[in-house]
Amino acid sequence: MASVEIVAVGTELLLGQLVDTNTAFIAQHLAEAGIDVHATHAVGDNRDRIAATIRAVIERAEGAITTGGLGPTIDDLTKEAVCDALDLGVELYEPALDQMQRMFAAIGRPMRGNNRKQAELPRGSLPLDNPNGTAPGFIAFRSDGKFVVSMPGVPREMKPMLVERVVPFLRERLGARETICTRVLHTIGLGESEVDHRIDELFRLSENPKIAILAHDFRVDVKIMAKATSVEAAQALIAPAQDEIERRLEGNIFGRDAATPASAINELLGAGGLKVALAESFTGGRIAAALTSVPGSSRNFVGGVVAYDNSVKIAQLGVKADTIAATGAVSAETAMQMAHGARVRFGADVALATTGIAGPDGGTADKPVGLAWFALDQGEAPTQTWRFELSGEREAIQQRATTIGLGILWRHLNRSIQQ
Amino acid sequence: MASVEIVAVGTELLLGQLVDTNTAFIAQHLAEAGIDVHATHAVGDNRDRIAATIRAVIERAEGAITTGGLGPTIDDLTKEAVCDALDLGVELYEPALDQMQRMFAAIGRPMRGNNRKQAELPRGSLPLDNPNGTAPGFIAFRSDGKFVVSMPGVPREMKPMLVERVVPFLRERLGARETICTRVLHTIGLGESEVDHRIDELFRLSENPKIAILAHDFRVDVKIMAKATSVEAAQALIAPAQDEIERRLEGNIFGRDAATPASAINELLGAGGLKVALAESFTGGRIAAALTSVPGSSRNFVGGVVAYDNSVKIAQLGVKADTIAATGAVSAETAMQMAHGARVRFGADVALATTGIAGPDGGTADKPVGLAWFALDQGEAPTQTWRFELSGEREAIQQRATTIGLGILWRHLNRSIQQ
Repeated sequence: MASVEIVAVGTELLLGQLVDTNTAFIAQHLAEAGIDVHATHAVGDNRDRIAATIRAVIERAEGAITTGGLGPTIDDLTKEAVCDALDLGVELYEPALDQMQRMFAAIGRPMRGNNRKQAELPRGSLPLDNPNGTAPGFIAFRSDGKFVVSMPGVPREMKPMLVERVVPFLRERLGARETICTRVLHTIGLGESEVDHRIDELFRLSENPKIAILAHDFRVDVKIMAKATSVEAAQALIAPAQDEIERRLEGNIFGRDAATPASAINELLGAGGLKVALAESFTGGRIAAALTSVPGSSRNFVGGVVAYDNSVKIAQLGVKADTIAATGAVSAETAMQMAHGARVRFGADVALATTGIAGPDGGTADKPVGLAWFALDQGEAPTQTWRFELSGEREAIQQRATTIGLGILWRHLNRSIQQ
Repeated sequence: MASVEIVAVGTELLLGQLVDTNTAFIAQHLAEAGIDVHATHAVGDNRDRIAATIRAVIERAEGAITTGGLGPTIDDLTKEAVCDALDLGVELYEPALDQMQRMFAAIGRPMRGNNRKQAELPRGSLPLDNPNGTAPGFIAFRSDGKFVVSMPGVPREMKPMLVERVVPFLRERLGARETICTRVLHTIGLGESEVDHRIDELFRLSENPKIAILAHDFRVDVKIMAKATSVEAAQALIAPAQDEIERRLEGNIFGRDAATPASAINELLGAGGLKVALAESFTGGRIAAALTSVPGSSRNFVGGVVAYDNSVKIAQLGVKADTIAATGAVSAETAMQMAHGARVRFGADVALATTGIAGPDGGTADKPVGLAWFALDQGEAPTQTWRFELSGEREAIQQRATTIGLGILWRHLNRSIQQ
């Protein structure tokens, strides 16, 4: 089958100032669509070298996929290099110019001449609109039908363009007949070795579907990948493995595929008609940020207090000064009063509180850096608390604590709403 | 000067199952040693394709640096491909065989025949011992003196080999007497095309130091890179360019090199002995999360309210219900009252408030998705407000608003503390 190669453009890649995550993202989506990639390349912001790389790629392969170098600055040269490599001129693509003019008007900034350059595309190419930025992508063709797909380098502009436009084009153009389907099961609250232990022999024995375990901080995903000639056939291979894995990891799978802990929580809150509030100390707003990442979360997430200073814990959440004096700000008692205060004052059904020591300073022999208390208050039943000692640097501790907090909230809602 | 290219070997890279961090690590160390890298590549575990890639590289460049594919398994084929590309046979490298035999004896496992393969190196090559694994690296030579450096793909085996053996070899071989120094200036509040416009002719004219513009969401970095025979000489080249760029972007450069908006804000708060509070609606805790990412931020960041629901804006921040009824939750008036409430109730010197529509739902003709109001209350002077219309998906809007909020806070502190 015809193959393609990926070309990432940017001098910063050759200087090692940026790890190229775009190439892996593109490669993964092409693999899932059954499109062969035989090589990937990175090249600097040099017109001749970009053009030479593209020429060499389309000698070997059916097409080149580039990312980066489409912006307005003088060292954005990918479009010029594609024109060189394919022997094409440029033409103005009006919709992109219109979009750019509207955008600059909206933010009240002048549009410079170098922005206009972005609305020009190689002659005869297929435009790829970019709703997330100013530079459109394009698919340009050589007279013999070989092609170059060019996308921006900014990940949030490139990713939707790849998934929505480029992958369908490539499947059609290259007649990809095998498809790879993937199902991801997201777990929370289990370690990697525990997940591995529970699904071990499935994991070893299965070639198609193939099963992989991917660990994040305090979260583990199980990935099931099947290859077949149709999506239906691939899904039929996935289904029995999925059933068995879901059985073995019951109570810890919060969602599938694109689900996040926050989207799962939001769904449970909606189903139960419940409202949640937060009282965050050392997670500093990260749990609130996660919950509000979900569209529509305003219906069930009331709000929270980032109670960094003790005075805020007292004034905004009603924690007793005596409690802080007696047990410290990082204690089960303080966490319980924070959760209680958040629930009552925000008029929520359930509230989660976090307090801990993110470091690098502030640890003691009794209360080391990484010590964390979580409390969940739901009104009727007694407030529950959890204690953890988290390892790592400040950022890792804050992120792990955020995942733990979301896990506590999800398991509570999952149990209480299923009952 | 002669250049090299990097070739990462491994099918998992072409399937996007692994992000290639080795290439960036190697590229960075070569850049610092003044060795030019004109391209990097990734290729699968396919003997012919690896050999073809290496052949193409040493036509263009003085040498190829490979990483990966030196292990004992059937799909480790880099050494064979290097022999193919350079037309060399193999010879046994005894010290590597000895080390392997000792290692297997120590762990009490039998040594397999496929392990012995790892102790064979291309004839005439320079061995690179691997104290952290079983596969030695090597530097193999073509009859005309062009060369291939091959290192393992496991980062903890590759990294010391690169730093201790390969970089000194390359400096010697390529006569790299130069070093590259880098200075990054971080701006906030200017678009990419505006920064480009202001430093345009510097940017075009300067070869050494070279100047590059890198854009993030509502943030732009300017990078100054100088090549010289010593660090001091490189820094002397950077200094005048830096002065000129700082002059042209005055009031928008919040920091250098490793600085973040949050670290710059934290420093200003510390210098001014000021305390800050937040009232976040549609940024949902992201500004608080950014501020608390900085160690020691608890000294100057008091806390904040994530006032997602209107009831929270009223009860926790004292926003008047009448105001919300008359002007809406997304309005200058509501933002001002939120900021005022946060400053007074949290006992802070300055407070920032955000309110907006992150979407995808909730927009109207009057108040579209992306509309955002920011307010800054500092007690004495009148409360300031800013209005934006942000484009993009929910996540992009939330992130841009976070950057804008941090920019507003930084500029205010920068002005008021410098006075």
